[in-house]
Amino acid sequence: MDCLFCSIVAGDIPSTKVYEDEATYAFMDIAPASEGHLIVVPKRHSKDVLEIPAEDLHAVIDTGQRMARRVTEVLGADGVNLLNNRGEHAWQTVFHFHLHVIPRYADKSRESLTLPWVPTPGDTEAIAALGARLAG
Amino acid sequence: MDCLFCSIVAGDIPSTKVYEDEATYAFMDIAPASEGHLIVVPKRHSKDVLEIPAEDLHAVIDTGQRMARRVTEVLGADGVNLLNNRGEHAWQTVFHFHLHVIPRYADKSRESLTLPWVPTPGDTEAIAALGARLAG
Repeated sequence: MDCLFCSIVAGDIPSTKVYEDEATYAFMDIAPASEGHLIVVPKRHSKDVLEIPAEDLHAVIDTGQRMARRVTEVLGADGVNLLNNRGEHAWQTVFHFHLHVIPRYADKSRESLTLPWVPTPGDTEAIAALGARLAG
Repeated sequence: MDCLFCSIVAGDIPSTKVYEDEATYAFMDIAPASEGHLIVVPKRHSKDVLEIPAEDLHAVIDTGQRMARRVTEVLGADGVNLLNNRGEHAWQTVFHFHLHVIPRYADKSRESLTLPWVPTPGDTEAIAALGARLAG
């Protein structure tokens, strides 16, 4: 199979499974950003958020919520990030839709993340103009 | 009202609206990480992903997908990140559930993001043990 995550779902490539239901599969990230970092995928292949059917998208976000609750309860995570990357310019490296579930901790020895941007007020007029274009 | 995003949804605090439906509201982030950075919220208040009802969660991710498609079509974004932060230790600053929709560009002058972690292989046994705990 050409797709790494399809192969993981099929069991052809081993993974540490955390959860599975009819539509989704959750497994540990092998290059974790924090203690308990895991990945949720739809079993059915979709490349990214632009093409995933609503049914699979809902199933993935449901499992993501379930996993967010689980890392909070089981690992005592103090927070969690849910992250989806679409396209190589947005850090996507495996082209099967996936949601990162990244537990966060007050104890920084349990994680190694930094905010990906520095929140800085933008140009008000430029933002309004972009918003108007996007509103269509 | 105590909640900034409830006030934005109610129109008591101005925002640049991009999209609205029965359950969700999308508006421009005023401190954008990239050109076109916007935020999707459920109209009904939930603090975070641990407590948001499935119905609102589905509505938000549907709008997130719609906005991902729109920034791709309208702004020519080369990629997009969808990000949810839960808890102050995960960079949540407004305690009304929200999804960041962050367009990404091959042209780095249109954004200012860096990957929040350095992907590095983790300890295989430790990861498997964590996975077993999470699988329950």
